[in-house]
Amino acid sequence: MAGPLIAPSILSADFAKLGEEVRAIDEAGADWVHIDVMDGHFVPNLTIGPAVVKALRPHTSKPFDVHLMISPVDPFLDAFAEAGADVITVHPEAGPHLHRTIQRIKSLGKKAGVSLNPATPAKALDYVLEEVDLVLVMSVNPGFGGQKFISSQLRKIEAIAKRIAKENLDVLIEVDGGIDPETAPQAVNAGANVLVAGSATFRGGQGSYAANIRALRGEG
Amino acid sequence: MAGPLIAPSILSADFAKLGEEVRAIDEAGADWVHIDVMDGHFVPNLTIGPAVVKALRPHTSKPFDVHLMISPVDPFLDAFAEAGADVITVHPEAGPHLHRTIQRIKSLGKKAGVSLNPATPAKALDYVLEEVDLVLVMSVNPGFGGQKFISSQLRKIEAIAKRIAKENLDVLIEVDGGIDPETAPQAVNAGANVLVAGSATFRGGQGSYAANIRALRGEG
Amino acid sequence: MAGPLIAPSILSADFAKLGEEVRAIDEAGADWVHIDVMDGHFVPNLTIGPAVVKALRPHTSKPFDVHLMISPVDPFLDAFAEAGADVITVHPEAGPHLHRTIQRIKSLGKKAGVSLNPATPAKALDYVLEEVDLVLVMSVNPGFGGQKFISSQLRKIEAIAKRIAKENLDVLIEVDGGIDPETAPQAVNAGANVLVAGSATFRGGQGSYAANIRALRGEG
Amino acid sequence: MAGPLIAPSILSADFAKLGEEVRAIDEAGADWVHIDVMDGHFVPNLTIGPAVVKALRPHTSKPFDVHLMISPVDPFLDAFAEAGADVITVHPEAGPHLHRTIQRIKSLGKKAGVSLNPATPAKALDYVLEEVDLVLVMSVNPGFGGQKFISSQLRKIEAIAKRIAKENLDVLIEVDGGIDPETAPQAVNAGANVLVAGSATFRGGQGSYAANIRALRGEG
Amino acid sequence: MAGPLIAPSILSADFAKLGEEVRAIDEAGADWVHIDVMDGHFVPNLTIGPAVVKALRPHTSKPFDVHLMISPVDPFLDAFAEAGADVITVHPEAGPHLHRTIQRIKSLGKKAGVSLNPATPAKALDYVLEEVDLVLVMSVNPGFGGQKFISSQLRKIEAIAKRIAKENLDVLIEVDGGIDPETAPQAVNAGANVLVAGSATFRGGQGSYAANIRALRGEG
Amino acid sequence: MAGPLIAPSILSADFAKLGEEVRAIDEAGADWVHIDVMDGHFVPNLTIGPAVVKALRPHTSKPFDVHLMISPVDPFLDAFAEAGADVITVHPEAGPHLHRTIQRIKSLGKKAGVSLNPATPAKALDYVLEEVDLVLVMSVNPGFGGQKFISSQLRKIEAIAKRIAKENLDVLIEVDGGIDPETAPQAVNAGANVLVAGSATFRGGQGSYAANIRALRGEG
Repeated sequence: MAGPLIAPSILSADFAKLGEEVRAIDEAGADWVHIDVMDGHFVPNLTIGPAVVKALRPHTSKPFDVHLMISPVDPFLDAFAEAGADVITVHPEAGPHLHRTIQRIKSLGKKAGVSLNPATPAKALDYVLEEVDLVLVMSVNPGFGGQKFISSQLRKIEAIAKRIAKENLDVLIEVDGGIDPETAPQAVNAGANVLVAGSATFRGGQGSYAANIRALRGEG
Repeated sequence: MAGPLIAPSILSADFAKLGEEVRAIDEAGADWVHIDVMDGHFVPNLTIGPAVVKALRPHTSKPFDVHLMISPVDPFLDAFAEAGADVITVHPEAGPHLHRTIQRIKSLGKKAGVSLNPATPAKALDYVLEEVDLVLVMSVNPGFGGQKFISSQLRKIEAIAKRIAKENLDVLIEVDGGIDPETAPQAVNAGANVLVAGSATFRGGQGSYAANIRALRGEG
Repeated sequence: MAGPLIAPSILSADFAKLGEEVRAIDEAGADWVHIDVMDGHFVPNLTIGPAVVKALRPHTSKPFDVHLMISPVDPFLDAFAEAGADVITVHPEAGPHLHRTIQRIKSLGKKAGVSLNPATPAKALDYVLEEVDLVLVMSVNPGFGGQKFISSQLRKIEAIAKRIAKENLDVLIEVDGGIDPETAPQAVNAGANVLVAGSATFRGGQGSYAANIRALRGEG
Repeated sequence: MAGPLIAPSILSADFAKLGEEVRAIDEAGADWVHIDVMDGHFVPNLTIGPAVVKALRPHTSKPFDVHLMISPVDPFLDAFAEAGADVITVHPEAGPHLHRTIQRIKSLGKKAGVSLNPATPAKALDYVLEEVDLVLVMSVNPGFGGQKFISSQLRKIEAIAKRIAKENLDVLIEVDGGIDPETAPQAVNAGANVLVAGSATFRGGQGSYAANIRALRGEG
Repeated sequence: MAGPLIAPSILSADFAKLGEEVRAIDEAGADWVHIDVMDGHFVPNLTIGPAVVKALRPHTSKPFDVHLMISPVDPFLDAFAEAGADVITVHPEAGPHLHRTIQRIKSLGKKAGVSLNPATPAKALDYVLEEVDLVLVMSVNPGFGGQKFISSQLRKIEAIAKRIAKENLDVLIEVDGGIDPETAPQAVNAGANVLVAGSATFRGGQGSYAANIRALRGEG
Repeated sequence: MAGPLIAPSILSADFAKLGEEVRAIDEAGADWVHIDVMDGHFVPNLTIGPAVVKALRPHTSKPFDVHLMISPVDPFLDAFAEAGADVITVHPEAGPHLHRTIQRIKSLGKKAGVSLNPATPAKALDYVLEEVDLVLVMSVNPGFGGQKFISSQLRKIEAIAKRIAKENLDVLIEVDGGIDPETAPQAVNAGANVLVAGSATFRGGQGSYAANIRALRGEG
């Protein structure tokens, strides 16, 4: 079977030339482009919104994997869909109507994801796993800097992968936080099939992106 | 006397190559770079945060004029100061401690501004005008698209300019919203000395920026 | 000149037969139907929403004068416009973009009103009075029971009326709270031209509505 | 054993003549009257509050089954109890003190219910099931229009019914959303014993209510 | 005429022996006991609540002057009245129904005050000054440490004093923040008649309180 | 093995002489001093903040066990750490980043606890139990008066104790609410090893504290 999909997070790219950065990771072999949207409320950091996503859309045809760290999130779904998102991922804590939020994303013709913070139990997926296309397991706390891979999340990945297999669902497991060539195989072994990587993709400048991505795939 | 300062709003720039855009307006004669930060809560749009500001800082030595449409705004002041803002402007509605917010901005070594929404009375400045470096009069409602210059705000600019003159204060009046070669002189005549212009600066592509800026200064 | 417009508040009607009540006040000579919408957040009471307004629409052709005690109010404007409101009145405290809210109401083809709580200064109208069709001066605190007419609000009505006359604006002044045949002429003398009356309209049952309304007009 | 209790939701009744509608469903054989209270905050719709409940109270002696889609809900419990509610149902998401809310409802002499949104795990009942009189499983997302019965909720009903049986508790399971003669028996088979039905009760006008209710009971 | 009333703020007392501290300032000649209640939301600090006020009540018969930096404040009025407050002071920013809040305080048999933050215009008092017993002008930003007397507030005191005199109202002006023997006479000359003083009262230990208070009165 | 640790809650002490009270319980044999911090938002009561904790710190060397009923809690962690807290306990409902909050407490050099409200499932601990030093099971609803021990929480204690034993974790289980000589042994038998007791410690005055504490330990 093929290795994991690699989704570089542009949070580690150069924000002064995002279009070029997106083209560079596309050419370097990235499968998806991961976009971290933070609103300064759900998380204590503020990053980029739909206008940036829209501006990047012409620079690649790879899927845009948009992680919305926004609360409440419902008023923003349409804007990100129109801006060119392909996967839209939300948090259970972002409002009391998670099922409805997922329905809405799908009715916009997009893939729907649910993201679990490190402390959020897998139980939160009980009645939505069958509705989603992707589960994003956060292996660091989103919106805070300087954190290491939280290894207890491997156990969460395993639990979700087990249920997906048991119910024969078509759901991807993505992991984000502290992913590098050392932690990537741990995540994959636990059941992850999409890896988000920020600094592990972008370090060393554009000349290194292809090698960085291969290393994350374990092809290094 | 010199004409008004021109502060192009990068909200109308190409977000895929912001560094280049900032260099282009710098070379085209912009006085300041105006950066609109929206959090999706104080206003219904979400734009860019401190990491983008930081990435742009090396691309110009012109002042960064950062308009924070964030509520509550206090937790973000330090991040924007560290990212390279020179002027930090906040809204009276962004928290009950406006005087303290201004004090904090100044203690960070930055110029402090207060922005008034179209419906906000000039009375909101009663006990802070003497503390600030700049008043930003919004001539459209911030965070909403497709609006025209609200001419009643000329009366507000006049009222503020009158008080500044009377008390001999060293405070700039900036105006933002619907500024183009037609409305610019109206704003300047009313007392504005800094003009924010988005599409009026960026239309026509980089080759037109210098002419666009001259036209805004009335030098066209 | 004609007497004041009378706008019975259905808050004092029988909620079990609102259609019949609305027809009864229409036949009894009411000019407008005043509808108090409370969300349990902006005010501590919860009353009725757009579906009720819509259900009442076929029962009269008199204008529906809808007072939205909702915060934030912007997400509800369309629903009340579609439900059949003719005048939509909002509070300055219901969001930081009052000018925009008024613009939106008018773009929906409705008359726009602004309501001032008893403690809210008339200054809140400084840059919106010229945009609105109506100012609603609350002569009791909205959403709380058992209150008397607050006579200091006569002074506020006078101040607003004076400015309307001076600027030759086409803006109605409505007053709501403790209006009865005794306070009605005080409000009218101060400058009010629309009177909201709840119990003073509905007391005594449907047979008394016409006489009650005449008494409010001072025709008793 | 008798069939399920039928609780028509007056959300589908004619709001212009609610008293008559309530009498009509009473005479047509409804067991309970289901009242959906939405505050425009917990859910994006706003319906009716305690004054409407109070006005309806004299029109029937059937139990008033009041579903509070309000957050925070605690400040409203007393008002609905005084207005004539018999069952008061709240959401776990409506505040961090669900156990206390239930205690309060019971101390007011009312039956207490907990409602689970489609995405809310049954686990939310772990330490409250033994305290409540009713669990309301939402088979659509509350407060949004035009939705279909979400069949995954049958699995949730089964899980709750199993625990109720195992612990020999005296707790009813109510289901609300997309209930019609086709889905009703599925819900009952899964373990539901109270069925909320809006359009399935009220369609066809008052002459059809009795037949509609019989059809929901499977007596058609 | 007598000098100003002195209201030591127990925020500067030893929280480990508040009863003794209150007795000490009583004996040292304090006129009132000023109690700063902060909720960590309206201001970023959290101090003490009603149970502390209640515990102190038996230790003095001097008036308890309770400044509520709480938002929303209405749910707490009864608790502080029952705990033994004599004056209850609130902020206009603490909710949209300031007039109602004042009414409620007075209906509890207490004196009602309104406090203005440094940036808050005196205009906020337009329609409530005649209803209150006291205006508290903050000469520092409440809830933040290490600030100096903001001299622009003298102008605010003068404006309020002028209106009180003109309308012949019975309203005290209290000032809080940076009050010491140097600033006290400035505040009094501007029109203040109650002075809150924290460290200027409590410095030097209990043996110094009487001298400290005399110095604040200008009797030193 | 030794009996449970006893942590008297100073919520039942005399707030007018907290230093003396803390010394008295220290001398009477208390193991910890339990401090209940309520912000009037997460719970409807407001108690004491960091300045009180700091004032008490010199009066005992026993650990300060600080239960933060604050939401959001993150902005307050540093202040309580600096004030002298030894254990800092937070609620899962106090923000969406519980794992991060725990990390932060530990990075401040303090013990981290998580508290579960009566309705909160033990599942909330799924991915944090291994990170914490203490779980606080609330056997009454925090912030409300006059409640009895909720015996269903014994089942929760047992479930947590079982997992701690199974995974061989070093985590204490504390219980708070309605603890007295009758309920204490039930809690201990279920697995609790720290008992919070308010009135059961402080009743009868300082002469009784030692006996009260012994009784709670089952040594009476």
